[in-house]
Amino acid sequence: MTHRILPAIMSGGAGTRLWPLSTEAEPKQFHAFGGGLSLFAETVRRVSGDAGGLSFAAPLVAANAAHLALVKRHLAAAGAEPSAIVLEPVGRNTAAVGAIAAALGHELEPGALVLLLPADHVIADRAAFLMAIARAAPIARDRIVTFGITPDRPETGYGYIKAGAELAPGVFAIESFREKPDVEAAAALLAEGGYAWNAGMFLFDPHVLLEEFAHAPKIRDGALQALAQAVRRDGVIYPDAAAFAAIPAAPLDTALMEKTRRAAVAPCAIGWADVGSWSEIWRLAEKDAAGNALQGGAAVLDGANNLVRGDGVKVCVAGVRDLIVIATADGVIVLPRARAQDVKALRDLALGNSD
Amino acid sequence: MTHRILPAIMSGGAGTRLWPLSTEAEPKQFHAFGGGLSLFAETVRRVSGDAGGLSFAAPLVAANAAHLALVKRHLAAAGAEPSAIVLEPVGRNTAAVGAIAAALGHELEPGALVLLLPADHVIADRAAFLMAIARAAPIARDRIVTFGITPDRPETGYGYIKAGAELAPGVFAIESFREKPDVEAAAALLAEGGYAWNAGMFLFDPHVLLEEFAHAPKIRDGALQALAQAVRRDGVIYPDAAAFAAIPAAPLDTALMEKTRRAAVAPCAIGWADVGSWSEIWRLAEKDAAGNALQGGAAVLDGANNLVRGDGVKVCVAGVRDLIVIATADGVIVLPRARAQDVKALRDLALGNSD
Repeated sequence: MTHRILPAIMSGGAGTRLWPLSTEAEPKQFHAFGGGLSLFAETVRRVSGDAGGLSFAAPLVAANAAHLALVKRHLAAAGAEPSAIVLEPVGRNTAAVGAIAAALGHELEPGALVLLLPADHVIADRAAFLMAIARAAPIARDRIVTFGITPDRPETGYGYIKAGAELAPGVFAIESFREKPDVEAAAALLAEGGYAWNAGMFLFDPHVLLEEFAHAPKIRDGALQALAQAVRRDGVIYPDAAAFAAIPAAPLDTALMEKTRRAAVAPCAIGWADVGSWSEIWRLAEKDAAGNALQGGAAVLDGANNLVRGDGVKVCVAGVRDLIVIATADGVIVLPRARAQDVKALRDLALGNSD
Repeated sequence: MTHRILPAIMSGGAGTRLWPLSTEAEPKQFHAFGGGLSLFAETVRRVSGDAGGLSFAAPLVAANAAHLALVKRHLAAAGAEPSAIVLEPVGRNTAAVGAIAAALGHELEPGALVLLLPADHVIADRAAFLMAIARAAPIARDRIVTFGITPDRPETGYGYIKAGAELAPGVFAIESFREKPDVEAAAALLAEGGYAWNAGMFLFDPHVLLEEFAHAPKIRDGALQALAQAVRRDGVIYPDAAAFAAIPAAPLDTALMEKTRRAAVAPCAIGWADVGSWSEIWRLAEKDAAGNALQGGAAVLDGANNLVRGDGVKVCVAGVRDLIVIATADGVIVLPRARAQDVKALRDLALGNSD
């Protein structure tokens, strides 16, 4: 049988750890990293058309209200027409988006499953991803399925999910959620086995999700109210600003997934990466023989294992190792790869943010 | 008595070792380094008015023909009207400029001495400089006086001059010239004493210089011919391009000073620096407690002994030491302070120069 799937693309991320390329005006998901299309456009294209027992509807997009023009441009680059674009007047995290996607999914594509995806991840193996979706689809009629990424290193930046009983080939009940571990704990989880990274991608039947929002009724009711009072014009949905702002902000994971008994996990190895930091981008990038990743206008003279990227300006480095050097019209950063987590602090320093 | 002095400002330098701030379109001398005025404007202002037995005429400026607008702007910033601006259609080094300055000095300020100065040096102690000029002036009626900088470190980037017999208080015959030494030789010269750095600044009577050009008659004759065929308009002198291009290119030091018996040196400690590299600029700059020199839009989080400068863009560094980081609209460079000599190679790399 063929499963009808409505992709719901969440484009609310700010990508502050990829400053100065990722900015408020043009965040991470609207940039390309080594490929021709942006992460957003790649995400849209990945879940389109008919493939492997799946039939994808035109995507629903939830985005920051300031990014409407960007969303339209990157949808066009992906060759996609949206089912609808929901503009969030303020960010209220993924639980609110999940509730709105469920309600709109029911309305726009009755009977379809909703596939809720961040717009700013890389998935290198599309075929494996589609296969995981197809395996998860039957279970998603009764449970909320999260796609768990099979870990290949003791990563401390993600939450971990422990798989329980197998419900169907490749789909498991969830035994427990584990918050971001330290490096020793992460290594122990890897050694123990049966864990997957929580990648924040969900497949669900709208009815099931809205029922399970009994665990977070204020979020659901607030989202439905903001939607009921929305203005709709030219395929764009503007939720009521006051009602939307009143929705409690929470991730779908903690608000719902960690509470419901109707969760499931589909572990998969799909070449996933969240492209969450410049060190991650160096790890994923093509590199020269000396380990330098050069992107945009960039050159290295006698240096090793650097990430050097110039957008609109030429960046030249000599005699340095293991550095991140990023230059755009918005700013320039230089720091060791091992300190990529400090980018947010540098951004605050540059923008004069005191928080 | 009061000595009448015509300053002749040589603005032909390219400053390639200060790329990407110093560019062909706007080279080093037209930038400020820690002060409010550019090196050019500071140079002009330093030798103006009446002071300490000296009476300065309005300056003569020799500049690249492409920089006329820049020269006028920086003269205005210095509050100066020029005696004349000579536009060089091509660079022919300092001997040609010296010959032209002597000929024009004779014409514009009969009886005055000519003070030939690079436009791109720092002289922190103006009073000491003026005193050195005043001491040298009587000797300059019969000899070409070069100002020698009393060395304070075994610098390998400059030529050295050995002082001979004292001709007048603080002015000496020249015993010998010494090309740029290696670091051991430089240390030996310092230990031996009696040496001064050759700073390329000259005080002379036009008649004397033109006579001594008997050691380089082709340069003198070529310069005089280019001047005789010049177009003069609105205070700007355009030497004949073909005649000017035919002048042999040579520094005044090797073409004349090392050959004439009528040379003298006036050693002086005047806070001189040629601002020849980014490491020199770090050395001269004001620094924070951790040794970081921050210029323009620049910030450091937990780093030491760096030079960080942003012109038109904010540059933020974290966790690095002893680096030069310079960002302008023309390019970005990152390299260790100890490798500042590689800037020219980085510039060639960025501009695609193969030479």
